[in-house]
Amino acid sequence: MDKPMNVCVLIGSLRKASLNGMLANALMSFAPPSMKLEIAEIGQLPFFNQDLEAAATPAQWTAFRQRVKTAGAVLFVTPEYNRSVPAALKNALDVGSRPYGGSVWDRKPCAIVSRSPSAIGAFGANHHLRQSLVFLNVPTMQQPEAYVGHADKLFDEHGKLVNDGTRKFLQAFMQAFANWVERTRS
Amino acid sequence: MDKPMNVCVLIGSLRKASLNGMLANALMSFAPPSMKLEIAEIGQLPFFNQDLEAAATPAQWTAFRQRVKTAGAVLFVTPEYNRSVPAALKNALDVGSRPYGGSVWDRKPCAIVSRSPSAIGAFGANHHLRQSLVFLNVPTMQQPEAYVGHADKLFDEHGKLVNDGTRKFLQAFMQAFANWVERTRS
Amino acid sequence: MDKPMNVCVLIGSLRKASLNGMLANALMSFAPPSMKLEIAEIGQLPFFNQDLEAAATPAQWTAFRQRVKTAGAVLFVTPEYNRSVPAALKNALDVGSRPYGGSVWDRKPCAIVSRSPSAIGAFGANHHLRQSLVFLNVPTMQQPEAYVGHADKLFDEHGKLVNDGTRKFLQAFMQAFANWVERTRS
Amino acid sequence: MDKPMNVCVLIGSLRKASLNGMLANALMSFAPPSMKLEIAEIGQLPFFNQDLEAAATPAQWTAFRQRVKTAGAVLFVTPEYNRSVPAALKNALDVGSRPYGGSVWDRKPCAIVSRSPSAIGAFGANHHLRQSLVFLNVPTMQQPEAYVGHADKLFDEHGKLVNDGTRKFLQAFMQAFANWVERTRS
Repeated sequence: MDKPMNVCVLIGSLRKASLNGMLANALMSFAPPSMKLEIAEIGQLPFFNQDLEAAATPAQWTAFRQRVKTAGAVLFVTPEYNRSVPAALKNALDVGSRPYGGSVWDRKPCAIVSRSPSAIGAFGANHHLRQSLVFLNVPTMQQPEAYVGHADKLFDEHGKLVNDGTRKFLQAFMQAFANWVERTRS
Repeated sequence: MDKPMNVCVLIGSLRKASLNGMLANALMSFAPPSMKLEIAEIGQLPFFNQDLEAAATPAQWTAFRQRVKTAGAVLFVTPEYNRSVPAALKNALDVGSRPYGGSVWDRKPCAIVSRSPSAIGAFGANHHLRQSLVFLNVPTMQQPEAYVGHADKLFDEHGKLVNDGTRKFLQAFMQAFANWVERTRS
Repeated sequence: MDKPMNVCVLIGSLRKASLNGMLANALMSFAPPSMKLEIAEIGQLPFFNQDLEAAATPAQWTAFRQRVKTAGAVLFVTPEYNRSVPAALKNALDVGSRPYGGSVWDRKPCAIVSRSPSAIGAFGANHHLRQSLVFLNVPTMQQPEAYVGHADKLFDEHGKLVNDGTRKFLQAFMQAFANWVERTRS
Repeated sequence: MDKPMNVCVLIGSLRKASLNGMLANALMSFAPPSMKLEIAEIGQLPFFNQDLEAAATPAQWTAFRQRVKTAGAVLFVTPEYNRSVPAALKNALDVGSRPYGGSVWDRKPCAIVSRSPSAIGAFGANHHLRQSLVFLNVPTMQQPEAYVGHADKLFDEHGKLVNDGTRKFLQAFMQAFANWVERTRS
């Protein structure tokens, strides 16, 4: 049997005990045997700035790029800040996209789960992220879309998912993601 | 005669000698007498993270929020990174939008100039920014839209704008902006 | 006292007994005395095609353009079709935008109410519409945003709004719209 | 050898002698042997309206749906109207997406070529179309993106493509599309 594929999980919130982290944990527990999910940290990355690259590439950028390169696929779990992608997550995309010709995102299949405390499920962040992924040549799973609304009501005080409908949805989502990766990986 | 209104200029690129900076300088020189434009730095701001706010608001956030509060209007000058807004600029929006109920952007008129080395003029960044500004309740000038393409060909080696058509366009843009601010300021 | 301003209401759905129609009726009943809202039909408009304009402008286009011209402001009430604006409503925008130099939308203040049977409230349609309105130079109210979700549960079998929270929200929305129009009308 | 796959070409402009038609012709001539491209007309389709479906499905809808069903993939060639998708093309998407559970778009790979007389290449229409295709579960080719600007200068008076760079780009685009279809078809 093949070794499971390493899948890099990027979380849009930097909070220690965020709902995004709980959601990511749930998704990781639902991964089919063909995938092994691991979170890659993004909060330590300096803002992308080409002047820095020209002088001496920051060590955090090098390590992050290396981390994504070893992954076979990417899973984004993100809240919405002001109807778009949180800056820390956008910065991770920008850092990984450079230097020219060396983007770590190229042809790496991905899926997106967006969530919000409100009903709307971070639709704006989800689709702004997708626009960047067109340019980055990331085959992005279309269906099922995952807009997780009222996310604060889905977990108990230990961070455990307690909503049955959401559990079934996320399990089906991860299976669909595995199929998508299988079909579109290079 | 009234004192000129202070207008805060936010630049999406952190590069020292960026084309965005040259473009911002040109725009500042074309400001009508009713406006005084000044650049507010954004590269020093830690990523927004609500945990930090809860512990002790970072001094850079406090200073930045104070800086924007004193302005009567905002001018965005931005490149496009991966078909969307550069992370540093998105972070400035996020930092200024908090804490809840205290957003510094609320009802502050703005205009957007986006630019790219390619022909497209950062259309993607321009409109992603606009989506955030809906949520932030920022009256955003609609016309003229400013997509400055082939920006590398517009300036000489001293950073001086040498394209006549662009000069006239930017002058008209600044006049329209002044009119828009006059009409929509609170 | 001034005559109330004529406000043109455009409805994105062509269904006879649509929830959009009920929602539009509710909004019309909440209009402040300074405004008189009337629905303008859009389903009869042939698709925009410049060849037709060159031959002989269709009578329906001429009548629609004239109708919008007489209005001082525009209110959009729309569902979402496939994460974007329904074709009939997009066509109304396109027809009204021509011929070159004669757009009927120019500088006409507007507001948008989007609605869906799901929780998301047609966020995608709402913001795609806003992107067109940038080009059309329509000052569009930013806040309050109106994403009306679960719209099927808000009305009784006679089409009467029975949700108190929604009623209060829509009343406040109409008052804010009146203020916005007052501030941004030419 | 396998029979070439039927690929349905949808053109966003209804003009008889449109640049979109010339562009579509060029793309059709560059199709690799594995594909046979044919234009499907969309201008005759009544606006989508669920009341019509409930009464008696219009014959044009039935024929169009049948036409797309027989295709193995879809190529969109479109201008931009008011920073978004032309209504006739959006309507074709809407008509093909219904009735519930019977969408003809589901899992049908596609690619998008957008074009404009200006420099921007209809970026807005291109990405609004992509947002609909997420919902419709259409695997959409990410790279190369095709924003064809200054389209009026690319063809001679007989509608023949006379720009070498564009020819090479479109040939590479069609080959990439064939590869994408091969990888993602069901």
